[in-house]
Amino acid sequence: MSQLFQLIAQTAAGGRRARLVLPHQNVETPVFMPVGTQGTVKAVPQDALETFGAEIILGNTYHLYLRPGHEAIRRMGGLHRFMSWPRALLTDSGGFQVYSLSQLRKVTDDGVQFRSHLDGSSHFFSPEHSIDVQIALGADIAMAFDECTEYPATRTRAEESLRLTMTWAARSLAHFRAHSHEVPWFDPRVCCMQCFGIVQGGMCRDLRRQCAERLVEMDFDGYAIGGLSVGEPRELTMEMIAEVLPLLPRDKPRYVMGVGYPDEIEQYARMGVDMMDCVLPTRAARHALLFTSEGRVNIKNRQYAEDQNPPDPACDCPVCRRYSRAYLRHLVQAGEPLAATLNSIHNLAFYLGIMQRVRQSLAEV
Amino acid sequence: MSQLFQLIAQTAAGGRRARLVLPHQNVETPVFMPVGTQGTVKAVPQDALETFGAEIILGNTYHLYLRPGHEAIRRMGGLHRFMSWPRALLTDSGGFQVYSLSQLRKVTDDGVQFRSHLDGSSHFFSPEHSIDVQIALGADIAMAFDECTEYPATRTRAEESLRLTMTWAARSLAHFRAHSHEVPWFDPRVCCMQCFGIVQGGMCRDLRRQCAERLVEMDFDGYAIGGLSVGEPRELTMEMIAEVLPLLPRDKPRYVMGVGYPDEIEQYARMGVDMMDCVLPTRAARHALLFTSEGRVNIKNRQYAEDQNPPDPACDCPVCRRYSRAYLRHLVQAGEPLAATLNSIHNLAFYLGIMQRVRQSLAEV
Repeated sequence: MSQLFQLIAQTAAGGRRARLVLPHQNVETPVFMPVGTQGTVKAVPQDALETFGAEIILGNTYHLYLRPGHEAIRRMGGLHRFMSWPRALLTDSGGFQVYSLSQLRKVTDDGVQFRSHLDGSSHFFSPEHSIDVQIALGADIAMAFDECTEYPATRTRAEESLRLTMTWAARSLAHFRAHSHEVPWFDPRVCCMQCFGIVQGGMCRDLRRQCAERLVEMDFDGYAIGGLSVGEPRELTMEMIAEVLPLLPRDKPRYVMGVGYPDEIEQYARMGVDMMDCVLPTRAARHALLFTSEGRVNIKNRQYAEDQNPPDPACDCPVCRRYSRAYLRHLVQAGEPLAATLNSIHNLAFYLGIMQRVRQSLAEV
Repeated sequence: MSQLFQLIAQTAAGGRRARLVLPHQNVETPVFMPVGTQGTVKAVPQDALETFGAEIILGNTYHLYLRPGHEAIRRMGGLHRFMSWPRALLTDSGGFQVYSLSQLRKVTDDGVQFRSHLDGSSHFFSPEHSIDVQIALGADIAMAFDECTEYPATRTRAEESLRLTMTWAARSLAHFRAHSHEVPWFDPRVCCMQCFGIVQGGMCRDLRRQCAERLVEMDFDGYAIGGLSVGEPRELTMEMIAEVLPLLPRDKPRYVMGVGYPDEIEQYARMGVDMMDCVLPTRAARHALLFTSEGRVNIKNRQYAEDQNPPDPACDCPVCRRYSRAYLRHLVQAGEPLAATLNSIHNLAFYLGIMQRVRQSLAEV
């Protein structure tokens, strides 16, 4: 067992309770990671994240590279210090945002030429550059630069995309190994930044297998399954995860990127997924959609106008302890910025609460 | 000395250190009151207000009457409970917003007919109705319904406006005395809701004097000076305050409405003003303007891009203890909602810090 991933318990179904040892924080897994795109989990102050127990959050390399710039963040001591977040951070590779946000994308074997969605300026990301940017940001976990296969895609397209992803994975890892000591907070006495590979392969089981096996040979610190939740039916998401998980080493963390709904994250955690992230809880919150133990609540609805119950009677989060549905509805109706803050805090606390219960049930096996 | 306003110290210049005893909270004065227009201090969670020491905040009768409606708030136990704010609340009379926000305003001796700025619907506010709405909201302090004299105004216009304000003050107070026990939280064992009169009179010293004397005869629980900060030069604001203060009873709180800049609130407090409110600290915060011990800081400026100092090195607020100028600038540049939250918390904490220092210096006299 790797010292950096300490397996505590495992079920017959594959679900694992473990501890991920990172430079800034030990993270209890399975874990859901709130997304902090631009160095902030949208509308949620850092102390609120701490209060409801977030141990690790995401930063988006593409966004932070463009603004305020990774070199500026490096000069200021890295992303942890810049955003005053002392716990763990993971940065994505930028690959997904280049794919989903940028304009005039041109992909070659060398990397991706693209135009910023902010000002149209021209930029180039190679695996080496993505790793350099991530080292400058200095998260606890960096991701290999990959190409996200769109859905639906032909087999030929998925194969070509996979070839790129595998080549880029090797280049990402080699560059990471040569430069990871350059993180702004480097200290030989603490454990190092880690680098995860990303399994792609579209919706082709054999390509997924091929990719997983190849990445495992490369010996990453952990493995992500990417290119899911891109429009495919949920059964297919599930099938791809089930195909890949058994191929990944037992003693390394497994991360499914960009999922999902509350029932999904619970299901995947019970299958053996250790880490997940998704913008859904915060994005839904900004659109007045709350996830609760009683199902989804569109807090804008008229029926909540004088409902003095907490958003979720079974929830112990700071929002449910203090505020009523009627008040949250009023904030939404009145266009008040506090609506996004309180709704986001509840949704994230609800997601983290699911993972906490899953961890508990896995530990009791 | 009234038991509800306990004078602790007074300077030769008139500045007073006192304690205002209200049903939900004892408030140390001089005090600056954050404005919570729609049942929320814009972008600031209630627990943050508590953390930096807000003892009393405002609610706006006009806004809450229109949305979610005072009857709904009454049914839910009053504004304190609705917004989960256990400390003191003051509601204005709605007069100023009717004057500044509504359309097609028609003023008669009876009251004001106006159209909602939200949906154009027609409404009527009389002194009695304003008090009824404020009792339904159930703040700790209600304000008499007044007519705010615009600036500049002719003497004839100021006289006519003043006549209305004085008539309405008497009707407000009579109605308040007959109905204040109808507040949702009424409890004969605790002290009652209070009602303050508002001194108007435009920029005419004699009209201001006349109004103050007349209101003092009516025996309100406290006295506000309204119709200031409506576009007049600051010397004139000052002159009107200086004219009115000596006419107000020593044993009742004095409130100047809608002021001001940091140096203004300090100056007025040292002259003997006990209470002030203003949207400036929160509104400026949403436009990236910070008030600091080093003066105004437009945090958007390029010069702060890599400035790792706190927004105000002399400030001990939760924002200055945790975040850098560079981070706040980034949040503003990136259009992140956290910018409004953090900037507002700092500005309000800065305003409250000024009042705290003034209180301390007054107590040491």
